[in-house]
Amino acid sequence: MPKPVLEFWYDFASTYSYLSAMRIEAAAEEAGVALVWRPFLLGPIFAAQGWTSSPFNVFPGKGRYMWRDMEREAARLGLPFCRPDPFPQNGLLAARIALLGGDRGWGPAFTKAVYTAEFAKGRNISDPVILSEVLAELGVDAASTLEEAETEATKTRLRRLGEEAQSRGIFGAPTFFAEDGEMFWGNDRLERALEWAMGDRARRSGFVV
Amino acid sequence: MPKPVLEFWYDFASTYSYLSAMRIEAAAEEAGVALVWRPFLLGPIFAAQGWTSSPFNVFPGKGRYMWRDMEREAARLGLPFCRPDPFPQNGLLAARIALLGGDRGWGPAFTKAVYTAEFAKGRNISDPVILSEVLAELGVDAASTLEEAETEATKTRLRRLGEEAQSRGIFGAPTFFAEDGEMFWGNDRLERALEWAMGDRARRSGFVV
Repeated sequence: MPKPVLEFWYDFASTYSYLSAMRIEAAAEEAGVALVWRPFLLGPIFAAQGWTSSPFNVFPGKGRYMWRDMEREAARLGLPFCRPDPFPQNGLLAARIALLGGDRGWGPAFTKAVYTAEFAKGRNISDPVILSEVLAELGVDAASTLEEAETEATKTRLRRLGEEAQSRGIFGAPTFFAEDGEMFWGNDRLERALEWAMGDRARRSGFVV
Repeated sequence: MPKPVLEFWYDFASTYSYLSAMRIEAAAEEAGVALVWRPFLLGPIFAAQGWTSSPFNVFPGKGRYMWRDMEREAARLGLPFCRPDPFPQNGLLAARIALLGGDRGWGPAFTKAVYTAEFAKGRNISDPVILSEVLAELGVDAASTLEEAETEATKTRLRRLGEEAQSRGIFGAPTFFAEDGEMFWGNDRLERALEWAMGDRARRSGFVV
């Protein structure tokens, strides 16, 4: 029987998405859940509710707390962490490349490498040179990939994914969806999302009533 | 040696504060941490950033998710849950009474009984009749308590606590403070806050370097 599936929706600028991206594969493996990686842009969703930046910039008190909480949570999870400058980073090009990587088997590795560049090494992930280095380290041809990332076809794909995010009620990242549409928001809900994915599959297959 | 102390700041209208209020005593007891209960009003803090209602009303997508998440989390914690109508409830009078209860040893019991009336029984906690019933069940004289709750002295105390919340950077509830000022936000951080409170005390007492 195929594994139950969990969708992982992430934005490259999102701090808590970094924490999930770095640990979701091991957690999903342990749970026996297959992952679908969905890079998308939160910007248009934030803009739709009148925010012109990250809510952590729009609401400074929440932002100050988030940076401290990220320090603590990254340390607890054994992950390096530095504060990107500027914040939020522009993740548009990285998200387009991640979509291509999803087709070719290097999406998760690319995603983790971009998050590491951004949150562990303090690199600017809007810079094509940085992204080229990341691709090269994965053994992917950078020049042709960047070119394909800027085609109308790729741009349209990412835009459609953003529209899907909005229509499915996503308002932040990371967000997880089980196969029955159950939605979980935030790195703090990763374990619950995996449990739900397993339980849902068990219920539908008749193992559990 | 006295126990380390954790401050628990809560708003009676706050859904996730309900989850914390109902479980914090057992969790603190197990951790060997003493609690200080701090009822306050989030309204002025929300108003200061331009919101005229709960962020769960101001941002409907986040609100829809919160109600579903509360159902799931309440079930997981073994707590009943119903959606208050109207939401948010006006917790002004209840907060004033809770302050008096804090002086007299029935603050925590009153707080839990108000949250139960609101989130388990669907009562309107702005209603002095409902609050009188809660007080009576605790063996507290309702008439004199309600009268004292409406004195200028009590009103000023609650207002001061609200100003303290704002000056200490509180932007939501529940919020927890360890003795060294470390802040934790949300029911999801209760365990971390207790761990911090214990660890901080251990560090300062020289047991742990």
